[in-house]
Amino acid sequence: MRPKALLFDTFGTLVDWRGSLVAQLTAWRGPNPDWPRLADAWRGEYAPSMDRVRRGEQPWTPLDALHRASLARLAPRFGLTLDDAALDALTRFWHRLDPWPDSAPGLARLHPRFLLAPLSNGNVALLADLARHANLRFDTLFGADVFGHYKPDPETYLGACRLLALPPGQVMLCAAHNADLAAARKFGLGTAFIARPAEHGPNRSRDAAATADWDYVATSVEDLATQLGY
Amino acid sequence: MRPKALLFDTFGTLVDWRGSLVAQLTAWRGPNPDWPRLADAWRGEYAPSMDRVRRGEQPWTPLDALHRASLARLAPRFGLTLDDAALDALTRFWHRLDPWPDSAPGLARLHPRFLLAPLSNGNVALLADLARHANLRFDTLFGADVFGHYKPDPETYLGACRLLALPPGQVMLCAAHNADLAAARKFGLGTAFIARPAEHGPNRSRDAAATADWDYVATSVEDLATQLGY
Repeated sequence: MRPKALLFDTFGTLVDWRGSLVAQLTAWRGPNPDWPRLADAWRGEYAPSMDRVRRGEQPWTPLDALHRASLARLAPRFGLTLDDAALDALTRFWHRLDPWPDSAPGLARLHPRFLLAPLSNGNVALLADLARHANLRFDTLFGADVFGHYKPDPETYLGACRLLALPPGQVMLCAAHNADLAAARKFGLGTAFIARPAEHGPNRSRDAAATADWDYVATSVEDLATQLGY
Repeated sequence: MRPKALLFDTFGTLVDWRGSLVAQLTAWRGPNPDWPRLADAWRGEYAPSMDRVRRGEQPWTPLDALHRASLARLAPRFGLTLDDAALDALTRFWHRLDPWPDSAPGLARLHPRFLLAPLSNGNVALLADLARHANLRFDTLFGADVFGHYKPDPETYLGACRLLALPPGQVMLCAAHNADLAAARKFGLGTAFIARPAEHGPNRSRDAAATADWDYVATSVEDLATQLGY
């Protein structure tokens, strides 16, 4: 598998959503043992909220709006009263997630040799802010709103290949989540697992290790660059 | 008009398609007085070929494929016999157009303050190659194939605003072509004219000067950056 383009899952794979949410919540209202639980609960709403869109129970809704609605539902459980401005501000925490230490230098090493883009369920506006905040070097941004579909719908993986004008066999998805890679493989893309054992903090992750013979298995984006020879 | 995002027309506005095509044709088969005429004829097929797509006479076709078909039609008129490989190679000349001297430094000055993207009738794969070749700093690429529409269809201008999650009044199109700016203004975007009197070489251009009271009128991308205060 010698790809021409590398697509990167973003939340968890390139950026530490949990640690960054806790840090921003702490900066907002001081330390609170609830913050890790709120971060987990908020992320817990992620898949169910996209599934409602995928099943057609609600029309296409970008991730920013799903994040905001999830937070509005969760806030009372954490004793938080959030007005519209606060909901907007906290939703934008997802635009300023910090990268894992190897993400920016790894992409910088890969950039001279490969076309690079996120393939993310985030929307383009979110990804644009995130790429600037975390100094992630991309050629373009494949947000879910480009396709009007969330991963693992085929329209996302194959839509990115179509826009890159490359056959799936020349495109590789790099992700910390086995299910994402399984979908990419099903549609003909190459696969690289990047282990992120700290994604869920002290909580165990079902993605602690590769569960299939992915084309590459790496411990970081820099390790992937090394394995690819750059 | 204080925009948050700047969209740039690409062919003519940021890159010198005519001079670059002539240079690449010369590198391919040596000097030939036909090359400027071929470049002009090839570009002359641009609008009619997109209009056939716009009118539904042919299904969505990305610009690379339109360029290739136009060249195949034109080649005999210039005494050229082009096989598939040659058609592919010459079509890719559009991926390696050189920038005007101010384009890269101008975008580099604007990048810290504005979200930057092309809004081009080129397809994403073409724009990705072009941005690398010409060292154009963008946050993402709005190729026509993202929208399945060519400018001046509203889906392009408004689609870019939707993906940026910005109202049109916070987005400004920067272009060397008055008609492009007129369409952008109709849909509520800000407008910046960048004069490119050399776009058509020695031929007169109907876009030699601004023909309306655009929000900004500049002589280069660097001049636009200066006028915007950066």
